[in-house]
Amino acid sequence: MERIIQLRQAVDEAARPRSIVVLGATGSIGRSTAEIIKGADGAFTVEAVAGGRDGRALAQVARELGAKFAAVADPDGYADLKEALSGTSIEAAAGPQAVIEAALHQADIVMGAIAGTAGVAPTFAALAAGRTVALANKECLVCAGHAFMRQAAASGTRLLPVDSEHNAIFQAMGDADLATIEMITLTASGGPFRTWTADEIARATPEQALNHPNWAMGPKVTIDSAGLMNKGLELIEAHYLFGVEAARLDVLVHAQSVVHGLVAFSDGSVTAGLAAPDMKVPIAHCLSHPKRISTKARRLDLAGVGQLTFERPDFERFPALRVALDALRMGRGLPTVLNAANEIAVEAFLKRLISFHEIARMVEEACNSALADGLAREPESIEDALAIDQATRERARFALAGRAGAAVN
Amino acid sequence: MERIIQLRQAVDEAARPRSIVVLGATGSIGRSTAEIIKGADGAFTVEAVAGGRDGRALAQVARELGAKFAAVADPDGYADLKEALSGTSIEAAAGPQAVIEAALHQADIVMGAIAGTAGVAPTFAALAAGRTVALANKECLVCAGHAFMRQAAASGTRLLPVDSEHNAIFQAMGDADLATIEMITLTASGGPFRTWTADEIARATPEQALNHPNWAMGPKVTIDSAGLMNKGLELIEAHYLFGVEAARLDVLVHAQSVVHGLVAFSDGSVTAGLAAPDMKVPIAHCLSHPKRISTKARRLDLAGVGQLTFERPDFERFPALRVALDALRMGRGLPTVLNAANEIAVEAFLKRLISFHEIARMVEEACNSALADGLAREPESIEDALAIDQATRERARFALAGRAGAAVN
Repeated sequence: MERIIQLRQAVDEAARPRSIVVLGATGSIGRSTAEIIKGADGAFTVEAVAGGRDGRALAQVARELGAKFAAVADPDGYADLKEALSGTSIEAAAGPQAVIEAALHQADIVMGAIAGTAGVAPTFAALAAGRTVALANKECLVCAGHAFMRQAAASGTRLLPVDSEHNAIFQAMGDADLATIEMITLTASGGPFRTWTADEIARATPEQALNHPNWAMGPKVTIDSAGLMNKGLELIEAHYLFGVEAARLDVLVHAQSVVHGLVAFSDGSVTAGLAAPDMKVPIAHCLSHPKRISTKARRLDLAGVGQLTFERPDFERFPALRVALDALRMGRGLPTVLNAANEIAVEAFLKRLISFHEIARMVEEACNSALADGLAREPESIEDALAIDQATRERARFALAGRAGAAVN
Repeated sequence: MERIIQLRQAVDEAARPRSIVVLGATGSIGRSTAEIIKGADGAFTVEAVAGGRDGRALAQVARELGAKFAAVADPDGYADLKEALSGTSIEAAAGPQAVIEAALHQADIVMGAIAGTAGVAPTFAALAAGRTVALANKECLVCAGHAFMRQAAASGTRLLPVDSEHNAIFQAMGDADLATIEMITLTASGGPFRTWTADEIARATPEQALNHPNWAMGPKVTIDSAGLMNKGLELIEAHYLFGVEAARLDVLVHAQSVVHGLVAFSDGSVTAGLAAPDMKVPIAHCLSHPKRISTKARRLDLAGVGQLTFERPDFERFPALRVALDALRMGRGLPTVLNAANEIAVEAFLKRLISFHEIARMVEEACNSALADGLAREPESIEDALAIDQATRERARFALAGRAGAAVN
């Protein structure tokens, strides 16, 4: 009898649409999430959406998805949001607290796709409230990985990785016992500078660095990809997400971006996750996990691709990867410092204040000085992590201002 | 309390060595199985071993593995076996019934590695007795797939695939819902004739066909590989093993034999199973499933391999693959006919009685005539399957004799 009741509950659960909150609904991942939801034939309902600045764009997503609540982080976006939602029953709100309110709406899954450190607090709030979080924000784990994983364990919930590499690894791992995993490998496309010399890379312009061969992404992550810093940040994420130490994390350069991640086991078996480079694939996987929905996402055609290449990354030409690996191995909050310093450095590069090869150097200097003066410490909470992040940013800006001054003199 | 008892049972289960029966202990898979068992530090105990003809070789394996019972199928091997086991407590026996007795020894896993149709009856006996069977014999599923899968379901047990392709797919599938699987792809190395013209292949000698680029296997399967008939037989196996129809089964030629199988899902995700071409990997996986042991099997070094290529198979140059796919699509016992006719054809090719391109033609003729005169019917039992198999062999031998006579005249 008890079994019958359990089965009935399972059937009910399977039949009812999944409720979703989309944080970062107006960004690239948010828009792909909306496409998946709209194409899924009523498999999902949307409780709340949150965006950054653009009230009009957010209102449109909220209408399309039939959300009940829409929060724009920047209060300046409120008027547009309110106006564009007039005549609907969708509640409009603004400010960081309203975004957290969106995150706390009752839902089966929260898509955490707010870019940058702005995503840390609302994503953490969703996790603390016991929601399953589909995580598309890098900063949560790179900046405050311990705090996030500890909270997930305490809430008895889980983080589902949306990043294509981590999602591929998650799919390839299945329910494997961590002790049987010998190596987890993330692949890197190698970016636009894969075949360039060290000198050419050092002199690369923002336009050249923004010209990614396989993925259309925002400028920050595209620059990170060009120098392989992005892969370093992903190694740090993988460390927290999968609970494996740096010695069992590896990177292979794979120019075609078809095999996204691999898991090697103690018996010599290797499983891998593959897909055409289309973010809709991991988004759909996370939203429907542990089931799967049908999507119109691009299908992988291996015979069409024809050839897959793999090579070891070159730490000489791509020092950012070495700097990130060092931060991961050292721990003690260095990933937090690395992430913050890197954001300032990339910003400075895009503004042509520093050269491409100075990005990694600036990040390494930030790590070294944080170690030297005690700023680097394992953050125990997200507040702690955000404080280290903030302090690092101020220092990095100060260092940049000093350089600018020096250059003028 | 009940939970505690269950947990205790699970702990006991985990601590106690797994008991194994090895059928086909003196063959290639059998020897690799012995290596895995010996290298696994007491994780396994061996209850019984069985071999074909070579009593002395079987006795040596039995001693090395500490088996309690050793059965040689050919009674002519009994004297050697008995003599070589003198002074041990290992019981010696001979004849097909003794092999079945070995198969029925109480064990956690039976390795079914007897080559050819000789493996069908003992492997089926193990399955019927409720044993988990690690299946390394192709004929069981190609010749009598329905009967085997029905028996596995009835016994509440399962077949674990040892073949590298099926094992890779099994690992890549995890516990996926069949309805979410869009395509299962087996890779084929393409064999020694991958880049040859149709004319060159038609005139290939046994020496050329036996020269496989990646795998060291017996002559029958090596010839099958050269014409891609092997991949056709594996598609048929996959159909029964995974319960998917021909339309969801595909083959890609992948010369490096590193990616062995792929599973494409309805959301656009693809998972794959990879390994260095070393049969010890899938053997170890099956013996320890659902756990994993550590092995010294060759590790996959993707950066060392450097490049993986994929191409669609050429049905013109490799008609055997088309013939096998047709048999799979038609069903009605044609896989049984195909398998038997192919064995006779390969034997005839190795004896230089027919040319390479006549193998597929002879198999296709056997299928056509079996369809025409009612020999082809879905075999309901292994006896039924073996009767179709036997009738097909007799016809094929008769056809060969007729040709030989015609050639002489």
